[in-house]
Amino acid sequence: MPKHADGEGGALDGVFHALSDPTRRQVVERLAQGPATTSDLARPFDMALPSFTQHLHVLERAGLVTSEKTGRVRTYRLAPQPFAHLDTWLAVQRARWTRRLDQLDSLLYDLKEQQQ
Amino acid sequence: MPKHADGEGGALDGVFHALSDPTRRQVVERLAQGPATTSDLARPFDMALPSFTQHLHVLERAGLVTSEKTGRVRTYRLAPQPFAHLDTWLAVQRARWTRRLDQLDSLLYDLKEQQQ
Repeated sequence: MPKHADGEGGALDGVFHALSDPTRRQVVERLAQGPATTSDLARPFDMALPSFTQHLHVLERAGLVTSEKTGRVRTYRLAPQPFAHLDTWLAVQRARWTRRLDQLDSLLYDLKEQQQ
Repeated sequence: MPKHADGEGGALDGVFHALSDPTRRQVVERLAQGPATTSDLARPFDMALPSFTQHLHVLERAGLVTSEKTGRVRTYRLAPQPFAHLDTWLAVQRARWTRRLDQLDSLLYDLKEQQQ
């Protein structure tokens, strides 16, 4: 299997996996507005705390969030770096796709020119 | 559990899941450059064809690719719509994050003004 040129392949696996769950995406949506504690984050969800903290662990393993414990309170923050990797990957695909559409446009133009 | 306001939550689950696998991302990277048949797509991978076609099915179920059969040959194309959903979701999070950083900037500025 060909290797990913950018070496970010493995990291992207975890990032996409972490974001494939609606609970985890909602945690990201909340943290985009500022840091929050475990109990703040858990409040909107009708879910046992151990299940909820598993979701936080998945996000942390993927590098999407970081956490810090002060006394008994753990506070989570969004880590922007993996989002930048996602953006880059999407931008590369979009650039390829757009280039291809441009090439199709030129091809159609040339065909029309030949027919005139 | 709170519902997603945009109703795209379920679709995004499948899109993020489909892209969490390096083989499937490489298929997307290839198709961004133009349509390709199953055997074209399978060629770079050291994988049994049934396993490989499972990956194609995951991409198709997520709406990231469409396929068409002519005789015995199935041709795959990228479907841009789900990428637009991804972009939108990421853009919303980036906007929240940036607004928050702007607010922190204003706060710091106000604190400095008060100290002068």
